Amino acid sequence: MNSSPGSDSYAVTRADLEAAAARLAGVAVRTPLLEAPLLNRELGFRLLVKAEPLQRTGSFKFRGAYNAIAQLDAAQRKAGVVAYSSGNHAQGVAAAASLLEVPATIVMPSDAPRIKLDNTRAWGAQVVLYDRIAEDREAIGERIARDSGAGLVRPYDDARVIAGQATVGLEIAEQAREAAVEPAVVIAPCSGGGLMSGIAFALAGAWPDAQLWTAEPEGFDDTARSLAAGHRVEAESGASSICDALLSPTPGELTFPILSGLGVRGASVSDDSVKRAMAAAFRHFKLVVEPGGAAALAAILEGGPDIAGGAVICVCSGGNADPGLFADVLREYAA
Amino acid sequence: MNSSPGSDSYAVTRADLEAAAARLAGVAVRTPLLEAPLLNRELGFRLLVKAEPLQRTGSFKFRGAYNAIAQLDAAQRKAGVVAYSSGNHAQGVAAAASLLEVPATIVMPSDAPRIKLDNTRAWGAQVVLYDRIAEDREAIGERIARDSGAGLVRPYDDARVIAGQATVGLEIAEQAREAAVEPAVVIAPCSGGGLMSGIAFALAGAWPDAQLWTAEPEGFDDTARSLAAGHRVEAESGASSICDALLSPTPGELTFPILSGLGVRGASVSDDSVKRAMAAAFRHFKLVVEPGGAAALAAILEGGPDIAGGAVICVCSGGNADPGLFADVLREYAA
Repeated sequence: MNSSPGSDSYAVTRADLEAAAARLAGVAVRTPLLEAPLLNRELGFRLLVKAEPLQRTGSFKFRGAYNAIAQLDAAQRKAGVVAYSSGNHAQGVAAAASLLEVPATIVMPSDAPRIKLDNTRAWGAQVVLYDRIAEDREAIGERIARDSGAGLVRPYDDARVIAGQATVGLEIAEQAREAAVEPAVVIAPCSGGGLMSGIAFALAGAWPDAQLWTAEPEGFDDTARSLAAGHRVEAESGASSICDALLSPTPGELTFPILSGLGVRGASVSDDSVKRAMAAAFRHFKLVVEPGGAAALAAILEGGPDIAGGAVICVCSGGNADPGLFADVLREYAA
Repeated sequence: MNSSPGSDSYAVTRADLEAAAARLAGVAVRTPLLEAPLLNRELGFRLLVKAEPLQRTGSFKFRGAYNAIAQLDAAQRKAGVVAYSSGNHAQGVAAAASLLEVPATIVMPSDAPRIKLDNTRAWGAQVVLYDRIAEDREAIGERIARDSGAGLVRPYDDARVIAGQATVGLEIAEQAREAAVEPAVVIAPCSGGGLMSGIAFALAGAWPDAQLWTAEPEGFDDTARSLAAGHRVEAESGASSICDALLSPTPGELTFPILSGLGVRGASVSDDSVKRAMAAAFRHFKLVVEPGGAAALAAILEGGPDIAGGAVICVCSGGNADPGLFADVLREYAA
């Protein structure tokens, strides 16, 4: 991890993280850090998996959503919230809004996995579908917010959301100490960068020699290319990936300076290696991980970051997998 | 739970449980108690799942095996251990023996799931295969023990093993308090009764009104029938079940008096309802549960025990599922 500029230059402060942790205590699940000794033996290093599929709503997204909505005042709560999301932020916002008794409207792509659509509706949110190729979800979300007076909860470019996701990093720091692990690498899946910017901020200074990595699908490696270029660039257009949760075209305005300032590097992974990682999580961790949630594990298993025998902490960020896809993966990669 | 006779009449004592918990601290995983609010809403009651697939070796069996082998003296450790098992006790003994540097020989059925055979060998144990229909695994295990001088670690009729499995119950008592749950029902899968006798003993007196249940596959409901009869009876012969971990023909000599004395009752479940429960664990808990590990969840989801709106604590006891079978279950039951 490179030296960091003063945290004043970032969207979040240490106090924001501590306040988020206090808000989420007893509400979010302190997900376990899992280890599989037989897999460690195969790999030649210790691999610890932060199991966010076991989080409320099946992904880390509940943390940021709850931290944002819990800060609304009475009038704002009455006006409700609106969010756009491929499905995990949708469920996180819908569940947090339900717990806090705030009406929620969620803009979701019409091709989102059915489990994500069904669960978002089951939490009581109103779902507005859009065409992921032809329409602009941000414009739709902003129009609904403007017309209805509801507050927009962006999936990553929101300091309250980043602070909530950062609690993953605070827990990693505690749990690594409990497990007597000083990691050489900490890696997490990345779309707009909310999760990894939060983790990097939470871990700043904890392990000065640790490498921090994001993992993205090939063709959606905008964060890796932006980090290499030193400024935000867009992903190539026309790419496709099974990682439905990781398709954002560019890192966030608030997240990129944190990722860049804290020396995070970016890896990218193929759909094939993501499927292998899902099968490995099934076999070794007994964990259901969705494609996007398995991107960091895929990067580790295919030897992306040079680990040099040190320990790895790898976030599996979500488990809302389509059952048919999961069955195909098991048939092809776990036989 | 009925009134219990003095614990003097049982194979284990409270002190044995406390010693087991101390031996397993920092070695076994304190598995989480998971909850899925959307499933609770469907069911009309709180359902908390004790997630033993996340235990070392993918099932609760590691607890009892480690507690047994850790008590061997230096000469006994050198002589090694032998066990017979359908696969989860096999892995538990192999892993515990490996950690404690004790040679292990495991007698396993030739039709055990490949993941169980592979992992047992990967832990360094010598595997001896037998024919589950034609041969007697106890006789083979006892002969190896006699010929080699190795110590036999029985899968359930061993006080050290029961005390180890009882740590599941100690954790349930703590975690239920943390979650502010006073369960109406506590239920666990059952083969020879090691797990549920340990849990029942650990929970004795904790919740005087709670019902304790075992769940067995149809055709292997020897524990249910024994509890109803008041003495040990055998399962019908000729039955088959996908629950490879739950095929023991009769409750144990040491486990039955505990189950019976503490008022445990027995439910039985079809293969079909077990598959539904595996699909529900995939969807709601993001947990890989093997057929036998899902028997208690199956009993709850099909409305076996009369819960009357109270909370349920359900043990999912193992997650060493064959990937092909798991894929079939998802295709058929989770679509």
